[in-house]
Amino acid sequence: MKNSLGREIPEYIEGYGPVTPFAGAFKNSGLRTRTSVKVSSLIPNQQKLLSSIDEALEKLNISDGMTISFHHHLRNGDFVLNKVMERIAARGIKDLTVAASSIFPIHAPLVGYMEKGVVTGLVSNYLSGPVAEAVSQGKLKKPALMQTHGGRARAIESGDLHIDIAFLAAPAADAYGNMNGVKGEAACGSLGYAVADAEYADKTVVITDHLVPYPAYPIEISQIYTDYVVETDSIGDPKGIVSGTTKITKDPVALIIAKRAAEVIKAAGLVREGMSFQTGAGGTSLAVAAELKKIMRQEGVKGSFASGGITGYLVEMLEEGLFSSLFDVQCFDLKAIESYRDNPTHQFMSASMYGNPHTKGAVVNNLDIMILGATEIDTDFNVNVTTSSNGVIMGGSGGHSDTAAGAKLSIVVTNLMKARLPIIKDKVMTVTTPGESIDVVVTERGIAVNPRRIDLLEKLKNTRLPLMTMKALKDLAEKTTGVPKIIETDDEIMAVVEYRDGSVIDVVRKVQGERSCVRCSC
Amino acid sequence: MKNSLGREIPEYIEGYGPVTPFAGAFKNSGLRTRTSVKVSSLIPNQQKLLSSIDEALEKLNISDGMTISFHHHLRNGDFVLNKVMERIAARGIKDLTVAASSIFPIHAPLVGYMEKGVVTGLVSNYLSGPVAEAVSQGKLKKPALMQTHGGRARAIESGDLHIDIAFLAAPAADAYGNMNGVKGEAACGSLGYAVADAEYADKTVVITDHLVPYPAYPIEISQIYTDYVVETDSIGDPKGIVSGTTKITKDPVALIIAKRAAEVIKAAGLVREGMSFQTGAGGTSLAVAAELKKIMRQEGVKGSFASGGITGYLVEMLEEGLFSSLFDVQCFDLKAIESYRDNPTHQFMSASMYGNPHTKGAVVNNLDIMILGATEIDTDFNVNVTTSSNGVIMGGSGGHSDTAAGAKLSIVVTNLMKARLPIIKDKVMTVTTPGESIDVVVTERGIAVNPRRIDLLEKLKNTRLPLMTMKALKDLAEKTTGVPKIIETDDEIMAVVEYRDGSVIDVVRKVQGERSCVRCSC
Repeated sequence: MKNSLGREIPEYIEGYGPVTPFAGAFKNSGLRTRTSVKVSSLIPNQQKLLSSIDEALEKLNISDGMTISFHHHLRNGDFVLNKVMERIAARGIKDLTVAASSIFPIHAPLVGYMEKGVVTGLVSNYLSGPVAEAVSQGKLKKPALMQTHGGRARAIESGDLHIDIAFLAAPAADAYGNMNGVKGEAACGSLGYAVADAEYADKTVVITDHLVPYPAYPIEISQIYTDYVVETDSIGDPKGIVSGTTKITKDPVALIIAKRAAEVIKAAGLVREGMSFQTGAGGTSLAVAAELKKIMRQEGVKGSFASGGITGYLVEMLEEGLFSSLFDVQCFDLKAIESYRDNPTHQFMSASMYGNPHTKGAVVNNLDIMILGATEIDTDFNVNVTTSSNGVIMGGSGGHSDTAAGAKLSIVVTNLMKARLPIIKDKVMTVTTPGESIDVVVTERGIAVNPRRIDLLEKLKNTRLPLMTMKALKDLAEKTTGVPKIIETDDEIMAVVEYRDGSVIDVVRKVQGERSCVRCSC
Repeated sequence: MKNSLGREIPEYIEGYGPVTPFAGAFKNSGLRTRTSVKVSSLIPNQQKLLSSIDEALEKLNISDGMTISFHHHLRNGDFVLNKVMERIAARGIKDLTVAASSIFPIHAPLVGYMEKGVVTGLVSNYLSGPVAEAVSQGKLKKPALMQTHGGRARAIESGDLHIDIAFLAAPAADAYGNMNGVKGEAACGSLGYAVADAEYADKTVVITDHLVPYPAYPIEISQIYTDYVVETDSIGDPKGIVSGTTKITKDPVALIIAKRAAEVIKAAGLVREGMSFQTGAGGTSLAVAAELKKIMRQEGVKGSFASGGITGYLVEMLEEGLFSSLFDVQCFDLKAIESYRDNPTHQFMSASMYGNPHTKGAVVNNLDIMILGATEIDTDFNVNVTTSSNGVIMGGSGGHSDTAAGAKLSIVVTNLMKARLPIIKDKVMTVTTPGESIDVVVTERGIAVNPRRIDLLEKLKNTRLPLMTMKALKDLAEKTTGVPKIIETDDEIMAVVEYRDGSVIDVVRKVQGERSCVRCSC
């Protein structure tokens, strides 16, 4: 069958189950349920502190076929997933599904566990490095399930993604399982992505290298959700967890794109009192924030909030009074962590509050402006940030489709070409975010407005901004790059791409022919 | 049938249902479930702000037989329950159950609604004033259900108490339903008792007189749990909400009791590094805190936390460094509100985190010392704080049985006689808290240790504290007061007293004979 974007998807996918085809960004809404949860209630004098991961695995009665989860706040500095998996593998456990909110290069040992059948399922919002390559090469028995940040919280809360055991890396925790991310050697700030796991897993184990006297403060995740606490020597490498600072690009082309994007925002009438804004931590995205900052100052405008993964740059805007609050699901640099720890207007949000479509209203619903990236984008404005243009997994939605769906103005900023390949295609290799959620594409050569946004087109017509159609932008690039070859795929499905509401927006099929290096498709 | 305390309770109570008899403080434990929840998911551009309570009732499709809930953070200054009930009654709705975490004299209009059949059920943790009297007089069609603070959270989360609509008084809220209790005219501090209602009701309506720009901060209850927001002129009278200051008693007898209680704590070996403590806001209870403070200073001891309803007195102890943190479910005075707002070590706790026995460990589980009051206490150490000794409802557990169950040392402080009536009885009129949870009773004439606590008895023997049996204390009082008459009751059940785990610890039966004034039993 085909979903509403015309993507060919089986009605049933082996290792995934029956498919609900994507039918539109808000078609799957209305009355929903949060699932019931098992709670092992604790009476006074029962302790939670265990001496080792092995003791925890013993008490948890870990067994074949379970789903275990991890959060990704320690990013490429995370030791916890590898440590836990090493002890699980040593017990001869098989057939696990690993539900990790994101996977980074540091998680390379997972590849071995996939090859040995210890891990046969993978659920994640973002896959990069050797694990992503291995999934693309077919080393995982079942198709990987790729979700969005809001969609993962939805899946866990609805019961679609049932977690048997959540292993939560805790930069600081007390022996009764209260935890936060602002203290200890591996401080990472907000623990927004860990909340649904803690609340809905059958069993929750806190793993920390910084055990503090009871009670921990601040408490980001409460003792009432944690079964056990394990102290270990180190949960992560600070150098891989956060950047010292995140920096704005100095590339002149990217700066032109950023400037134009800010002009689009202004022309759209969204530079106004109470405005809200989100952008990624990439160089071009941050450059948009810098341009917007200038305009907000000029206009004397005070915004309501900025959200998402938070950088020092947004902290500066908060401190300057350009926003009255920040919503922080994850800190990207040291300045963000400090601000989150010390400034009460720099507020916590869980992944569910951030982007779960089946709540009574996520933060993305109140976003005015979202700045997004793209690996590919097609003439229907569908965006791919999941696979490279040759079909190899190298990312995933993260919050891409959540924020695009919620924001009043979703702008993709991108060069027209990257590595001599065109970004705009007739058809993207994989749809991550549907075109209906994308309002404008800003490139160095021209700006395309989604034809659905007639109102926006009217406003932009009165500016000197270089408006073009997507087709024209595509043709412009192809004059330099030529028309790219169409990549042929097998029927075999390597990954299922779930939209935030749980419907299937696309699948990633195995690319035909052996490649010696999937990373650069050489 | 009889429960484990020998209280005669029917197997089925009309208007309540089948009875699980109380079998011991921790007999009903182990694996439990939190129930599933209906969520009306919201897409972008859907608004929540309504112009009136009437508009909310219309949208909510309020109808006969529903259960609606309120929290009691505005205490005797609360306007919200009355305002909502007035509009509901005007619509001709019948047969509602009101689940209000506590009821105060200001809620007197409920009596009229009970008489007219608008309200036929009542669920609460504490009943005082005209509504309590009316329940005792049989004006409510069904028996009132009396719970504990932790038990109410348990009942809501387990699904035992299903709430159709929660009406949440919000001292400050934004138009998307984020709320806090620290700002606005009706600031009350922590909103701990409102959390379970917000999270588990089918529909949640925020009612505020202080609408702030989005996003509110701090956020105590998140937008993801709220369906509608109604702005009204005033939600409460600050004079009825909090005291300016809470004061320690100057009564010399009470001060002797307090001093002895502190000596018991010391002799028990609990004045030690990392100790934790809770006491009520009553004069004698606070006096114990004052005595304990002296001892902690002398010994140079730093405690971990104090908890519960928080007073300025505990704030001073926090600020002096005698405790490293406070857990606050409710603020009792202005100083507590300010501290809760400004001091990050003064932490929020929900009612569930406070005392729900069916979580992975409530805060009460970590309490060392709990100071409690009593209306009556019997020779088996069972405590009554629900009815007067003549059987009229004038209170309820609140956190009494939650903290008594959790604390390592639960001390009842009480005068031996009050209003020329003895406090110690052979059998209390109503059991609120089981004797097994009470370790020591401290009176001005003598101290009784629960025989179950042989360890404690050993420790106290080596002191000069006047140890006596409960029987001896009872006899001592009766020499002055005479033996009190036994109050005769009918079979008719006015209220069901649920222990924190949902079992029935006692029932309140109608007192025989008409009384012109139930308040003082004259």
